[in-house]
Amino acid sequence: MYSFNESREIINNTISKINLADDPAELFNPIKYTLSTGGKRLRPILVLMSCELFSGKIDEAIMPALGIEMFHNFTLLHDDIMDKSPIRRNKPTVHKKWNENIAILSGDVMSILSYKYITKCHKDTLPSVIDLFNQTSVMVCKGQQYDMNFEALKAVTVDEYLNMIELKTSVLIAASAKLGAILGSANQEDTNHMYNFGWNLGMAFQIQDDLLDVYGDLNIFGKKPGGDIIANKKTYLLVKALEIASSEQKVRIYNQLEKKNFDADKKINAILSVYNELNIKDLSEELIKEYLNKSKSELEKASPDDFKKDQLKEVFGILLNRNK
Amino acid sequence: MYSFNESREIINNTISKINLADDPAELFNPIKYTLSTGGKRLRPILVLMSCELFSGKIDEAIMPALGIEMFHNFTLLHDDIMDKSPIRRNKPTVHKKWNENIAILSGDVMSILSYKYITKCHKDTLPSVIDLFNQTSVMVCKGQQYDMNFEALKAVTVDEYLNMIELKTSVLIAASAKLGAILGSANQEDTNHMYNFGWNLGMAFQIQDDLLDVYGDLNIFGKKPGGDIIANKKTYLLVKALEIASSEQKVRIYNQLEKKNFDADKKINAILSVYNELNIKDLSEELIKEYLNKSKSELEKASPDDFKKDQLKEVFGILLNRNK
Repeated sequence: MYSFNESREIINNTISKINLADDPAELFNPIKYTLSTGGKRLRPILVLMSCELFSGKIDEAIMPALGIEMFHNFTLLHDDIMDKSPIRRNKPTVHKKWNENIAILSGDVMSILSYKYITKCHKDTLPSVIDLFNQTSVMVCKGQQYDMNFEALKAVTVDEYLNMIELKTSVLIAASAKLGAILGSANQEDTNHMYNFGWNLGMAFQIQDDLLDVYGDLNIFGKKPGGDIIANKKTYLLVKALEIASSEQKVRIYNQLEKKNFDADKKINAILSVYNELNIKDLSEELIKEYLNKSKSELEKASPDDFKKDQLKEVFGILLNRNK
Repeated sequence: MYSFNESREIINNTISKINLADDPAELFNPIKYTLSTGGKRLRPILVLMSCELFSGKIDEAIMPALGIEMFHNFTLLHDDIMDKSPIRRNKPTVHKKWNENIAILSGDVMSILSYKYITKCHKDTLPSVIDLFNQTSVMVCKGQQYDMNFEALKAVTVDEYLNMIELKTSVLIAASAKLGAILGSANQEDTNHMYNFGWNLGMAFQIQDDLLDVYGDLNIFGKKPGGDIIANKKTYLLVKALEIASSEQKVRIYNQLEKKNFDADKKINAILSVYNELNIKDLSEELIKEYLNKSKSELEKASPDDFKKDQLKEVFGILLNRNK
């Protein structure tokens, strides 16, 4: 079994050798740029490791893993246009470096290419691979739409928030783990365990992302803390705080959310003091733990030997240690 | 064999019954709107008729035909954002009726749904259906990029123009005819003839579109003539005129192209007078005829009986009579 880091190496090597057309350059350079800016490669790694878990080899999984990474990067590229984000992974986003039209169209090509690579698999697995991807990719777009809708809403419940991140984040991580299992010829029970393993991992992952935005270490996490607070983003921390806050605490939160002109540090500190009074950090960590435990237990239920599954369990440590 | 108009009825019925999700409404209402605004349905009709030509039935082709129409409408939706077009088929475009973010994301979902419907076919034909669609869809995006690149160029050669419309228009019409043949279990020789039939038809179709913009009848064509002239669009008429114009005529054309402030009718008349001096209408009609003859000859080479192919030949009359 390749380790998590070895699997990442394989993905990065594959991406560096990918043979995209050169012409028209306006279309393909942004794709090469986007893929080369890195990222954790979590999703394609899960495809590879989950395939190897069942079949003992990864050859069948490499192109579909690349397709999943291509799809993920396509969604980021288009999301960045919609969110007007200037920076991604410490580099200018495509619509800033080139322009919006190029970002729309090169994103469209990435979406098409993701199908091209994902469907590079044996014809016996092709129908279930396509079904899985068709279902998942529409859900991811729904998640993005809910996320945008939330911006205009004053209040979002915890359930609404969890439903949104399920669609926007978890289902693709779940599908990556399941895709690997399908490609590795796992039986249906096992592919379902792998889906649930990925689903719960994805939920934990997204809530931890929200947590790191506020409580993460700048040097490790790579972003200045509090970006979500400044942007009034409906994170788990905010929706949970609004759920359990007293009337007085709610007023303090909404005062900050409604201010048009504000000092960034003052706003962050004001919201943070409510979070701290409400133990939001602990509550978030507990929920992350809960999802991680479910994720582990699903992986344990899958039929491969424990020593193989232990390699995949590295993912929990790697994700949990992102802020240390 | 269903006639061209009967096939259109089948497509329109299928579209009217399509079961899209309701939630989030911001994502699915623009898709329903786009599909309901009509259009010629040329591509899905070709899928149905080409399938029936070989297999005598259309059941296998209905969902893939819907997928092709979905893909075509996805490209129009995103092209309209990029071209900042306010109107399509006499109705506001999605980015005008809703907003740009909704247009980007609902277009993304249409692109994904097109794969969903196109892949609803027998698992034996699935690999070749996917290969065909993967290749075609990237080419269509390349065509759109070249078309956008042309806007910034002073001169475009006839060859460059023909290469652009091949990618932007012809390959999808070619793929529609070939897709139907694959679904109808045609042999490889026949699927190639159907591809070439569609390819040449697509070339004729696009050049005729350019011609109708200038010489079409407002009441029939539904657009005020000269829109392409006002927009300095690199049409066949313009690139051909620039190829054969005298120095004096070139100066008259470029004088118009370079004017920032102009009276629309005066500009149209000035360009039109050069076109008329150069017999651009006749030259365009000759080229259309040439492509149509090739298209017919490819259809004639396909193995089905003549009386079946005659039904499909209706398409030539219908397209040629668009301006009458």
